Amino acid sequence: MRIKCIVSYDGSLFYGWQKQPGLRTVQQEIETALTKITKENISIHSSGRTDAKVHASHQVFHFDTDFNIAQKQWIQALNHFLPEDIYIKDSEIVSNDFHSRYSAKKKEYHYLLSVNQYNPLQRNYIYQYPYGSLDLEEMRKVAQIFIGKYDFASFCVYDQYGLTTRTIYDFRIEENNGIFTFILIGDGFRRYMVRHIVGGVIQVGAHRKNIDFLKELLDSKGKKKCLFKAEPQGLYLEHVYYK
Amino acid sequence: MRIKCIVSYDGSLFYGWQKQPGLRTVQQEIETALTKITKENISIHSSGRTDAKVHASHQVFHFDTDFNIAQKQWIQALNHFLPEDIYIKDSEIVSNDFHSRYSAKKKEYHYLLSVNQYNPLQRNYIYQYPYGSLDLEEMRKVAQIFIGKYDFASFCVYDQYGLTTRTIYDFRIEENNGIFTFILIGDGFRRYMVRHIVGGVIQVGAHRKNIDFLKELLDSKGKKKCLFKAEPQGLYLEHVYYK
Repeated sequence: MRIKCIVSYDGSLFYGWQKQPGLRTVQQEIETALTKITKENISIHSSGRTDAKVHASHQVFHFDTDFNIAQKQWIQALNHFLPEDIYIKDSEIVSNDFHSRYSAKKKEYHYLLSVNQYNPLQRNYIYQYPYGSLDLEEMRKVAQIFIGKYDFASFCVYDQYGLTTRTIYDFRIEENNGIFTFILIGDGFRRYMVRHIVGGVIQVGAHRKNIDFLKELLDSKGKKKCLFKAEPQGLYLEHVYYK
Repeated sequence: MRIKCIVSYDGSLFYGWQKQPGLRTVQQEIETALTKITKENISIHSSGRTDAKVHASHQVFHFDTDFNIAQKQWIQALNHFLPEDIYIKDSEIVSNDFHSRYSAKKKEYHYLLSVNQYNPLQRNYIYQYPYGSLDLEEMRKVAQIFIGKYDFASFCVYDQYGLTTRTIYDFRIEENNGIFTFILIGDGFRRYMVRHIVGGVIQVGAHRKNIDFLKELLDSKGKKKCLFKAEPQGLYLEHVYYK
């Protein structure tokens, strides 16, 4: 049967989601826990990868198993074997045509940034922007240019030409006591895409680049690359939406 | 001359404030940084120790030096040599009769606790209480018995008889979306005192003990010990007040 799980994790001490030999990754920890429970060799499939130091409040993965326990028992069984920086929030049996990645309709990412005095207690969870204040209204304006269906090649990594058209449904920016939250919702995001977009928007907020500069990058469809990439520790996979 | 500094730190990766051979402590890191700057052997004096994993939003220390730089330059100089989990927020030259510990009039501690589903992103910063909801009104009632001048021996460690009379000026409890903040202000707190008091109050909030039980502990002046000690990671030294 196929099991779908919702998981949250603190990305600080992981080399990202995806399994890599000799490195501590979220996928590896979960697969190790599953083997301990089921004695099976199980591969899990997530809605997408997250990079080193990136967090997830709500990531989704599924796996197939013959091990038969009540659908909600996976929560306790997995959490028992998982380290304290990974937590299974929910589990359920799903039909075999469900796929964490291919069935996903929308994803929501949040990026947190502080313009306040450096706070060591936030350093792994909110990017400590060291260059002073940011212009919220200007950033809200430039955020609008990203809403819609575009080829985001200029905001992706180099080897992804041709697969870089995505739809961004919403891009909001909130501010509360010097902490900015960038909220992006789209049908999917390529590797580093959120961090390049937020990185570009921050440049506009700092008045180092203007809106036309980012518009030109976007219109160039990859000919001109965005060279600004926001730090990973402020980024959260906040939700994955299915139908 | 004498320099007073305000420092914040993430206690997660420290064996507390006080220097101990072979262990990573906040005092050791700061003294090492001071030696790099001044080439002097400097001992620093804080308003008080904090234990392993306990945080500080605003701790105060002072030191004496012949190294002569502008009073605010200590901020940048120290932060340059300090690791990213310690941050000097302010520095100033003070008179030689100022002492971080003996001149302190009041200290404020905050204790953070969540009754929500376990959140791996908060695990080092908000105690993840695993036993369900807590009765806020009942905890607010029992908090009142601690306000005043008492012998808190029952809430201190064993070797502190006779030195355990303290005044607590205020003890408030706030709740916001399942996150409780216990706010204690007093003229000083002995080792583990805040954690024993909060630990006891939590027992009342969970309806495992009643108000009379804690009153009896307090009145016994050390004959009956509080055996409940809240976990260190929720505790913050929030402020030190001078005249």
